[in-house]
Amino acid sequence: MIEKIFAPQLLGLTALERESVHERLDRTVGNPAAKAAIDMALWDILGRAAGMPVSGLLGGYSDRMRVSHMVGFAPAAEMVAEAERIRDTYGITTFKVKVGRQPYTEDVTACRALREALGPDVDLYIDGNRGWTASDAVRALREMADLGLTFAEELCPADDVLGRRWLVAQSPVLFIADESATRAAEVTRELLGGSATAISIKTARTGFIASQRVLHECEGLGVEVVMGNQIDGGIGTLCSVAFGAAHGGAGAVPDPDGRLVRQADRGRGLARLAPGSPAPQVLGARPPTDHHPAVLQGRQPCRRRHRLRREARADPRPGSGCGRQRPRGHVRLRPRQGVIDRALRRTHGRRHSARPRPGGPRGPGGP
Amino acid sequence: MIEKIFAPQLLGLTALERESVHERLDRTVGNPAAKAAIDMALWDILGRAAGMPVSGLLGGYSDRMRVSHMVGFAPAAEMVAEAERIRDTYGITTFKVKVGRQPYTEDVTACRALREALGPDVDLYIDGNRGWTASDAVRALREMADLGLTFAEELCPADDVLGRRWLVAQSPVLFIADESATRAAEVTRELLGGSATAISIKTARTGFIASQRVLHECEGLGVEVVMGNQIDGGIGTLCSVAFGAAHGGAGAVPDPDGRLVRQADRGRGLARLAPGSPAPQVLGARPPTDHHPAVLQGRQPCRRRHRLRREARADPRPGSGCGRQRPRGHVRLRPRQGVIDRALRRTHGRRHSARPRPGGPRGPGGP
Repeated sequence: MIEKIFAPQLLGLTALERESVHERLDRTVGNPAAKAAIDMALWDILGRAAGMPVSGLLGGYSDRMRVSHMVGFAPAAEMVAEAERIRDTYGITTFKVKVGRQPYTEDVTACRALREALGPDVDLYIDGNRGWTASDAVRALREMADLGLTFAEELCPADDVLGRRWLVAQSPVLFIADESATRAAEVTRELLGGSATAISIKTARTGFIASQRVLHECEGLGVEVVMGNQIDGGIGTLCSVAFGAAHGGAGAVPDPDGRLVRQADRGRGLARLAPGSPAPQVLGARPPTDHHPAVLQGRQPCRRRHRLRREARADPRPGSGCGRQRPRGHVRLRPRQGVIDRALRRTHGRRHSARPRPGGPRGPGGP
Repeated sequence: MIEKIFAPQLLGLTALERESVHERLDRTVGNPAAKAAIDMALWDILGRAAGMPVSGLLGGYSDRMRVSHMVGFAPAAEMVAEAERIRDTYGITTFKVKVGRQPYTEDVTACRALREALGPDVDLYIDGNRGWTASDAVRALREMADLGLTFAEELCPADDVLGRRWLVAQSPVLFIADESATRAAEVTRELLGGSATAISIKTARTGFIASQRVLHECEGLGVEVVMGNQIDGGIGTLCSVAFGAAHGGAGAVPDPDGRLVRQADRGRGLARLAPGSPAPQVLGARPPTDHHPAVLQGRQPCRRRHRLRREARADPRPGSGCGRQRPRGHVRLRPRQGVIDRALRRTHGRRHSARPRPGGPRGPGGP
């Protein structure tokens, strides 16, 4: 797609003519992953030419963001074991739990088992990948009302328009649109139509500049966003962190004045942009390893709320330690200039495969 | 404000930590012009450090945008004479006509005189600065229905909430919110509340990154924007052009493949970013001069509509010449790296004065 269709249209433009590049790309409908790869490669070129990190050019809010691990379909006991292993190995304490099975009670059972095993200090964020009906979803949310869920994502199809609106209106947690809102216009339709109350942004499909457009629209509308990851490889994950860390509001981002470093020190799962470290590598893991979580999820609430939330979180919880341990659960990513454009095509090609990465999470086959 | 309040909070941050800078600035409410000046100075620093034009870092869509000239309150014959002089001297053919006088019929008379004198090929865009009641405005729009107005801006106060909504609902042209929508949240309220159907962006009050947030929100919502100028000095005008030209959709922006250069050649008023030319200077004016239009207005319609509109405009009109004349009505602005930060404080200080610049337009005392 890039070689045959897009590249010939872009010859002669420079990385400083990004908007013209996109105008030409947009003559062809669809192909968001190829367009995203080109956009991020342009930013990589800019960063290399300027000798500056792309995350700084994008906004430079922080060098780290909180991550989650995706727990795919399995018997409840296996899901619990996986989550415990990830928590103990990487310090990650946010879990995106795949739901949407039939009967829905199987997922309710799994979520309850996770909460009981992991305790109150982890975030459980359910993602249905459109697997339930609206009716199933409403019943499931009611039965999980005591589990303290963080978010719910795409529990039923967005094309079940009125059912989805009915579900969203009574959801006790923010309802995230992901695959139903991949462009700014879709974001507008889903939000104004009552089909979502939060948005998932994935750089693999909107690159940096269209992701920024969606983020800015959501900020203006007062809508929270999360950064998603659709089984990207290492470079794709790096792009997600570069974007998320640039823009503020990622769940556990330290303020430059250090207020939140304590949270990192408490071992919450964070992805870190750290020039010079191998990309990507988990630091603080036992044993040291170059495995990285394939699902990376940082909250990006709107700024006002975020500030309040961060301040609340900065208070050390009783029993959570003195905040002096060695940081654990950080993913340090080396934003090595020049690697992105060489690797993007491979990464994004891989994205289309529903086959999970070896050693990666077991999802229900969707992003 | 900058020296005493903001600067001490920013010590130690770099230009690559823009989002952190804004988080700190936003601890203090208000003071948008000071915050905007700091934001644009950061971009200037980035551009100088990278050796790249800021307009390119922002998006690099084009090197020029269409401008308008503001025609202030005066007897109708004087307003016509001023518009003719500007058209003949600078090639500018879009006029932002101040309205809002009592009785409203005085403005209707002036607009009719302008259309009759200038003919059908100029754009007349009225701006009421909240001077009329909603009832006046509806009557005035009806009486000017045959004048082919382009836009109407702030004809009545936004705080006349229901009256404004009633007016906007029946306006035959896009109704622009300017001083009532200076932040993203206000943009959201005015648009969703039916108080506006288009938005004016001014870099003097939202800098580059908050302007980008508003632009991106409007694009996502399918809402057109214009770039405004509030009696800025030369550096402020340069900032408006740098932003507007970066993002595509300015009224007469040439496509990189040259489709619209003919329009420029036909003598339409365009502002041009041209490294190496004095900043700002009108090129093609008779006689050559370093005067620049104090009001600079480029349309930024959403991209889909814009593309159609540009293609329509690219057709040479009968009698408009062969498109081979020397370009006229261009404002070439030298984006000289380093001038912005030195001059921003002075420029933005001046902004707060309602006193018109010597030789500048006579506005009704508001932006």
